Amino acid sequence: MSFFASVIGKSNVLQEESELSGLNEDWMGKYQGNSRLALRPKSTDQVSKILAYCNEKCIAVVPQGGNTGLVGGSVPVHDEVILSMSRMNEIRSFDPVSGVLVVDAGAILHNVDEYLVERDHIFPLDLGAKGSCHVGGNVATNAGGIRFLRYGSLHGNVLGLEVVLANGQVLNALSTLRKDNTGYDVKQIFIGSEGSLGVITGLSVLCPPRPKSVNVVFLAVPSFEKCQEILTAARQRLGEILSAYEFLDELAFQTVLNIHHGRVHSPLPYGASSPFYILFETHGSNAEHDKAKVDGFLDYLVESNLITDGVVSQDETQAKSLWFIRESVPESISRAGKVYKYDISIPVSKMYDIVLDMRKRLAHLPQTQVSGYGHLGDSNLHLNVVEPTYTAETLHLIEPYVYEWTASVGGSISAEHGIGVMKPNHLHYSKSPVAISMMQSIKAFLDPKGILNPYKVLPL
Amino acid sequence: MSFFASVIGKSNVLQEESELSGLNEDWMGKYQGNSRLALRPKSTDQVSKILAYCNEKCIAVVPQGGNTGLVGGSVPVHDEVILSMSRMNEIRSFDPVSGVLVVDAGAILHNVDEYLVERDHIFPLDLGAKGSCHVGGNVATNAGGIRFLRYGSLHGNVLGLEVVLANGQVLNALSTLRKDNTGYDVKQIFIGSEGSLGVITGLSVLCPPRPKSVNVVFLAVPSFEKCQEILTAARQRLGEILSAYEFLDELAFQTVLNIHHGRVHSPLPYGASSPFYILFETHGSNAEHDKAKVDGFLDYLVESNLITDGVVSQDETQAKSLWFIRESVPESISRAGKVYKYDISIPVSKMYDIVLDMRKRLAHLPQTQVSGYGHLGDSNLHLNVVEPTYTAETLHLIEPYVYEWTASVGGSISAEHGIGVMKPNHLHYSKSPVAISMMQSIKAFLDPKGILNPYKVLPL
Repeated sequence: MSFFASVIGKSNVLQEESELSGLNEDWMGKYQGNSRLALRPKSTDQVSKILAYCNEKCIAVVPQGGNTGLVGGSVPVHDEVILSMSRMNEIRSFDPVSGVLVVDAGAILHNVDEYLVERDHIFPLDLGAKGSCHVGGNVATNAGGIRFLRYGSLHGNVLGLEVVLANGQVLNALSTLRKDNTGYDVKQIFIGSEGSLGVITGLSVLCPPRPKSVNVVFLAVPSFEKCQEILTAARQRLGEILSAYEFLDELAFQTVLNIHHGRVHSPLPYGASSPFYILFETHGSNAEHDKAKVDGFLDYLVESNLITDGVVSQDETQAKSLWFIRESVPESISRAGKVYKYDISIPVSKMYDIVLDMRKRLAHLPQTQVSGYGHLGDSNLHLNVVEPTYTAETLHLIEPYVYEWTASVGGSISAEHGIGVMKPNHLHYSKSPVAISMMQSIKAFLDPKGILNPYKVLPL
Repeated sequence: MSFFASVIGKSNVLQEESELSGLNEDWMGKYQGNSRLALRPKSTDQVSKILAYCNEKCIAVVPQGGNTGLVGGSVPVHDEVILSMSRMNEIRSFDPVSGVLVVDAGAILHNVDEYLVERDHIFPLDLGAKGSCHVGGNVATNAGGIRFLRYGSLHGNVLGLEVVLANGQVLNALSTLRKDNTGYDVKQIFIGSEGSLGVITGLSVLCPPRPKSVNVVFLAVPSFEKCQEILTAARQRLGEILSAYEFLDELAFQTVLNIHHGRVHSPLPYGASSPFYILFETHGSNAEHDKAKVDGFLDYLVESNLITDGVVSQDETQAKSLWFIRESVPESISRAGKVYKYDISIPVSKMYDIVLDMRKRLAHLPQTQVSGYGHLGDSNLHLNVVEPTYTAETLHLIEPYVYEWTASVGGSISAEHGIGVMKPNHLHYSKSPVAISMMQSIKAFLDPKGILNPYKVLPL
């Protein structure tokens, strides 16, 4: 302990149960570790010294960002040392001409986005956990979020990374250039590596200009087929301004209204219940043009009988309240009971079938409820099963069925949440033996002693 | 030879000097190998058998796509076996709903784009060599091209790869899903690896919808400072529809007119010469909105005295002829003499300084000419020095000066052309020792015998 105290100061070496309990457990209460030590470095150099020491002594380390993950990747499994990135939260630089931001890994996404909005830019990623999650954690998990459709993957938007390797060496690949083809793009391997190959301490990101005009539209749709038809039409008619296309089923929607009883109401004028709801958003540079496109599109939807009800946000407050409904789904469902969460990529046409199949499969368990929602525009479904307490029986009815089902349609068993401690043994459903073997080789040369986030990502 | 003939058929085993000469030399006549054998496989399985055999016998192999590279990456250095991908040129599948294309690596970019255009989509990459280059080669070199500004990096657009590893194992990472976070994204390491880590045999790519409305504008601009001002204004006023922003200096422009004398004329109404020219393009979904944005922008440019002349394409033919001027620059300059080509990323504000500095440095050599052009919107400069024959004196005046200059402003010594055989020993100007060491470790575990594209990418 005296070594760690000498590097980061005594007050940043946490050993009290009261200080550790929140860091040992994930926010869903599903994963629970037993670490006796958490460290809070303030600089890359401190992270480097900590890892060099831990590597020498073979001490296991779990890097922890905002601890908002969904697969147990950021909490210890046993007594790993928790490396909290929360004090590394400075903006390092921002260039308004190129839109390139350089920032510490532990900065909170919401704070970074606020900083950028003041400078007429936005972060290329947005998600429900933005008030807590760290941008470094977003990169480590290759987060997707709600505007992936428009701004694309972090593999494209992250221009550079600073990473401390297991042995304490600092990889400075913090390029701020949009184009740099000088040899292998080594930073890419850390994007989505979930803290198992190195600790991301800094990142440079290409940030798009802040849209001058934003429209948010909430629709009631009578069938999943029509949700797909609307998506195809939106791609054609809204084109380059479409920035999000999300769906909720009736159960997900009602859960939000029930949990927030009296405080959240259906935004739809007719208010009748509907099997499906779509939220779509546009980001554009010309309010008049965008409004013309959105109005024309809505006229088309009404004439084609694709929707039964709809509302367009009239101001920023209303836009936020529409987004609140979509973004509150995960938290509302988890307040309704214990949740088995699955995050899968499936071709759009088959996306809702797994929800219907799962309902049939669990029909004899009256206390379970199955809902589906997510990023329809990216073929990304969030399948949630909720029941009063976690039971082995239900788990075995769901797994590996859901993974087999997903593999059978060429889907991915983890669209955006990652593998963590939840899915290493299911990796083979989506990755070939050669790919898994390559992953193991990469782990072996970057972290030969296996100190970084053990028991995660790779099958044992 | 009998082994190779048994795998791919005798007619695809090339040994005649007449057949080999075009494959041994790059298109600029700068790099010349001495291979006695070229193989033309038709399938992934054949590539796998060839590599397994070569790996066992320690036979070096150079994968070759369209041989349009600019750093000697696709021609042998000594007598490596040439693995030509030209017969692997089939479209495997295309899904018009998701826009995901799966294609053989040896398909020619132009052919792929034509196929997509018929299906109301486009390839997310476009470049001057499109009539010859292969899509697999584009991925292997992480090509940037002229619409990078809008559609972004191949690291974001390539969804999956099929790669034959040095030992003949096939890595099937040919996902067609937009989102797939199942473990490390191993395919990323092959994007930009220049054939030195594996042979890309197939790819799946996210293709954007074909724009319904395209505008191409050619401008005469009195100074480089004004070229930058126009870029900033274009980002604000054209926003999401801006798809390319290219510049040429006067010498690059005049070289095109001279080489194509009588067949290509200045497109500008007043035709007077200008220090700089800008070509910008818009891609959009609504012709009326796009025209209003472009017209408003041009009015602003005239009122603000940012341009001295300009023309807007009135139809597709005129749009193509404007693009022809920009796209003919590399070929026109190479017909004017032997070219020293540099492809560098530099912050926009300093981008043209290296051209001016190089002219001063070579002022005593009256037969050399220095021009600058490229992807201004991506901070990517193409610096070309042309003289009647290659001379050691000129080379030593340019290198390492140009690399030192680039490193001193935090630039990249290879923005999009790669490293090849030209720049391995200059890699250190843009990559840290830790990054180079990581590259070497990756090479060592993926190609332990070093049979794939030796003498390239990595410093010896």
